[in-house]
Amino acid sequence: MQTYLDCVPCFVRQALDSARRCTDVPAIHEQLLREALALAANLSFDSPPPVMGRLIHRRLRELTGQADPYRDAKQAANAFALQLYPALKQLVMCSGDPLATAVRLAIAGNVMDLGVKSGLTESEIRSAIDEAVEGQVDSGAVEALRQSILSAGDILYLADNAGEIVLDRLLIEQMPPGRVTVVVKGGPIINDATREDAEAAGLGDIAEIIDNGSDAPGTVLDLCSPSFRQRFDAAELVIVKGQGNYETLNECGHRNLFFLLKIKCVIIARDLRCGLGDMVVRKHEVVSRSAAAGLDTDFDGTTEVTQS
Amino acid sequence: MQTYLDCVPCFVRQALDSARRCTDVPAIHEQLLREALALAANLSFDSPPPVMGRLIHRRLRELTGQADPYRDAKQAANAFALQLYPALKQLVMCSGDPLATAVRLAIAGNVMDLGVKSGLTESEIRSAIDEAVEGQVDSGAVEALRQSILSAGDILYLADNAGEIVLDRLLIEQMPPGRVTVVVKGGPIINDATREDAEAAGLGDIAEIIDNGSDAPGTVLDLCSPSFRQRFDAAELVIVKGQGNYETLNECGHRNLFFLLKIKCVIIARDLRCGLGDMVVRKHEVVSRSAAAGLDTDFDGTTEVTQS
Repeated sequence: MQTYLDCVPCFVRQALDSARRCTDVPAIHEQLLREALALAANLSFDSPPPVMGRLIHRRLRELTGQADPYRDAKQAANAFALQLYPALKQLVMCSGDPLATAVRLAIAGNVMDLGVKSGLTESEIRSAIDEAVEGQVDSGAVEALRQSILSAGDILYLADNAGEIVLDRLLIEQMPPGRVTVVVKGGPIINDATREDAEAAGLGDIAEIIDNGSDAPGTVLDLCSPSFRQRFDAAELVIVKGQGNYETLNECGHRNLFFLLKIKCVIIARDLRCGLGDMVVRKHEVVSRSAAAGLDTDFDGTTEVTQS
Repeated sequence: MQTYLDCVPCFVRQALDSARRCTDVPAIHEQLLREALALAANLSFDSPPPVMGRLIHRRLRELTGQADPYRDAKQAANAFALQLYPALKQLVMCSGDPLATAVRLAIAGNVMDLGVKSGLTESEIRSAIDEAVEGQVDSGAVEALRQSILSAGDILYLADNAGEIVLDRLLIEQMPPGRVTVVVKGGPIINDATREDAEAAGLGDIAEIIDNGSDAPGTVLDLCSPSFRQRFDAAELVIVKGQGNYETLNECGHRNLFFLLKIKCVIIARDLRCGLGDMVVRKHEVVSRSAAAGLDTDFDGTTEVTQS
């Protein structure tokens, strides 16, 4: 997905929020804000938003001298989600449709995104989970996902955030053993899950864990390692969690890929023709280059995407 | 008032909103957005926010080739307010305290601010008026204003927006005839009232109308004409409407000045120790330079202003 003009004020706000979250030094808040403005002024809007997010958070790490400023937040999110895990596991096991319930819970976990919103309370997470169990999900898409899971020889599961990854485990446990590879980020970026989080979630016992070789808050294929790209291209099924991964893969060429996410911004809502807060299971449709070129960078534009 | 870091994402959003409001050309939306980012990256945060607003809207006028892109909106706001005027005048006349009622209505009119929010419906304006009649206003400050109005030989009334200026007339009509001078902006800027709007509101019959010689969306004294500054310094009483005028005059040295405004942003709310939506009547307290220097540009800071 390109960067829409409406993403830009949001970048600026997020840069300031992140700086405040990571340090109490006002001079760093101002410095990161000014650098984010200068970066955005010259940004190519053809790139997806996580390209900008990566640059801002690299600078934040440099300015604060912290290699992983969200480490404590990630550990706390994992610990909180692990507390919830036994009851949620029970919910899945007692469900008439364990896979569908696990899909809902994995999507609910996607609220744990500190890129979109720097503060998130435990009660907001609990509410998202409660809503997810009853909320509307495209049942046709869940059926298509179920069939793909049953038939795929190997499944690549692109995780999104720490904490959330514990709820992903509920879904991965519903998949045929030995076929799933969990993909995490190659380096710390916001509260995106890294290998440490996947292991804390207990995924090491039930799946292979690899990283994508990149510290973008999404999956920018051009920035990923050759070995990951090979795995991505060859995978029979790819399951993709969250907004950042959606923004960076929604124009990719993979023909058996599903997006699972909770809609947290109006740009993504419009792009997916959904509402804010919706839980999305969406099979990826490969868009031809010429149709994609017809997209308007201006959110107010009425140009619609023609899908092939 | 200095520019707080939190003002910056808001500048960027307002630049985009304003561009879209004034033209359908996506290239201009992008161009103004990029220029606003570059301007903000190098902005002195010691200046009040209207300094930035002035630069952005100057560029918008240049890019669109429109000398007054908000002219239609201003005329529509005046026409709408003039429709309301007879009933509101009746309300003031039948009130047990006509001056206090007129103060409330003048403040209610301050919602007609297209700088803060590019879209505003007639029903939002009607709601603001309904709330104003019943809402909380500092009665001690209204009494102080009443005494100042009664004793001042000349009164300078710094208007804010078109439409709103019709409701200002209700208040000006409660003042001693022949003593009030209404001040409008020296050139078109957003929907701020100019001479044309003051005349449309019928103020030409009851007061002198002058302009401040500047096209800033506030009263940046350094940018105003010498003749206005002379009038400002000499006025026995100055009544100041709206946020932009507050932001630019809250550190001025005038010793008999009242701010009348509706709180439309969290920064101003914090600065005035009020809540969003509050109606404010506040006698200006002159702050010493040393105390003002102690202000923190970072909104998260806990530094309090010591007033002399």
